[in-house]
Amino acid sequence: MNRTREQLMEAVKAQMPERRWQHTLGVMETAVKLAKQYGADPAKADMAAILHDVCKFWPVEKQAETVRLNPELPQDMLDYDKELWHAPAAVAVARDEYGVTDPEVLDAILYHTSGRERMTQLDKIVCLADYIEPGRDFPNVHKIREIAEYSVEKALVAGFDSTISFLLQQGKRIYPLTVLARNGLLIEIKSTGG
Amino acid sequence: MNRTREQLMEAVKAQMPERRWQHTLGVMETAVKLAKQYGADPAKADMAAILHDVCKFWPVEKQAETVRLNPELPQDMLDYDKELWHAPAAVAVARDEYGVTDPEVLDAILYHTSGRERMTQLDKIVCLADYIEPGRDFPNVHKIREIAEYSVEKALVAGFDSTISFLLQQGKRIYPLTVLARNGLLIEIKSTGG
Repeated sequence: MNRTREQLMEAVKAQMPERRWQHTLGVMETAVKLAKQYGADPAKADMAAILHDVCKFWPVEKQAETVRLNPELPQDMLDYDKELWHAPAAVAVARDEYGVTDPEVLDAILYHTSGRERMTQLDKIVCLADYIEPGRDFPNVHKIREIAEYSVEKALVAGFDSTISFLLQQGKRIYPLTVLARNGLLIEIKSTGG
Repeated sequence: MNRTREQLMEAVKAQMPERRWQHTLGVMETAVKLAKQYGADPAKADMAAILHDVCKFWPVEKQAETVRLNPELPQDMLDYDKELWHAPAAVAVARDEYGVTDPEVLDAILYHTSGRERMTQLDKIVCLADYIEPGRDFPNVHKIREIAEYSVEKALVAGFDSTISFLLQQGKRIYPLTVLARNGLLIEIKSTGG
């Protein structure tokens, strides 16, 4: 509790391979930049980014168990792809081990993979930073980076499109909240004449 | 009320252009064939197929108004793509103008475009017949027809995949029930070792 930011970074770094830590540094840098550009709190973006993948390299069963032990977390994520589980698990760790209490930061961690129906500016920024940080390489990532220059919502729709397309190709189920997130962003884009 | 099947067909035919009537005849033929193959009631499949598109060529505002006048129908379809609206409207027409009372037939009409979370065998067959009747021509329709030879569930997943991909490409919102339908079918396929 009450660690300095540097102590927190060391503690998180110790729980993942170097490659993933480099990804975390990329998300931190990108999230802070996006927060400044799109009107979210850079310090909150930085904190959520540091912690978003803290459980990513835990055994998946430990991730699931952490979620089950905290019934206030969305248990239905456990019915879907295990790629989702590290996000709610990280909320429990951020709160119970590292003393993070800010609900905006905790929500941005919780929904950084799935999105949610009404995403806050901070939710959007952390989720988008996770898609486009400099180390990322997947089909269309360059296109999403270009869109992020002028619209966080349009870039995030493009990110969710790539996730949903991937799940279609893989014959995997789609987490309904991701569809609601994308639908909500499309309504936001339309309402601002985008 | 109490029309013969031939009188009903004439009444439905009068509400659409010849091209769409030919589609309806194709869905009837395909739905009956699939019902025999996959253990649904062919007479119910035939009845649902006759009526599924009865409102398709009504003005969309009349379709929406018909849904609004019947609050027991899923009103949330009106928040999504107007391509969905003719399905609930057709339920009101089937029931109130043509005396159809069988809830299985009415549900198969209601969900023939969107699907739903727990699809009945009749729901699946009418929905799949609408994708693959002989007059249909869209990317991958041949592949879906091939899959339909051995699995109604896998063919329907492929159909929903094509719909969801189309909506992604068009930047349109996805009706959440369609995702729940696809997710449910994937669970069914997995549970039967498919």
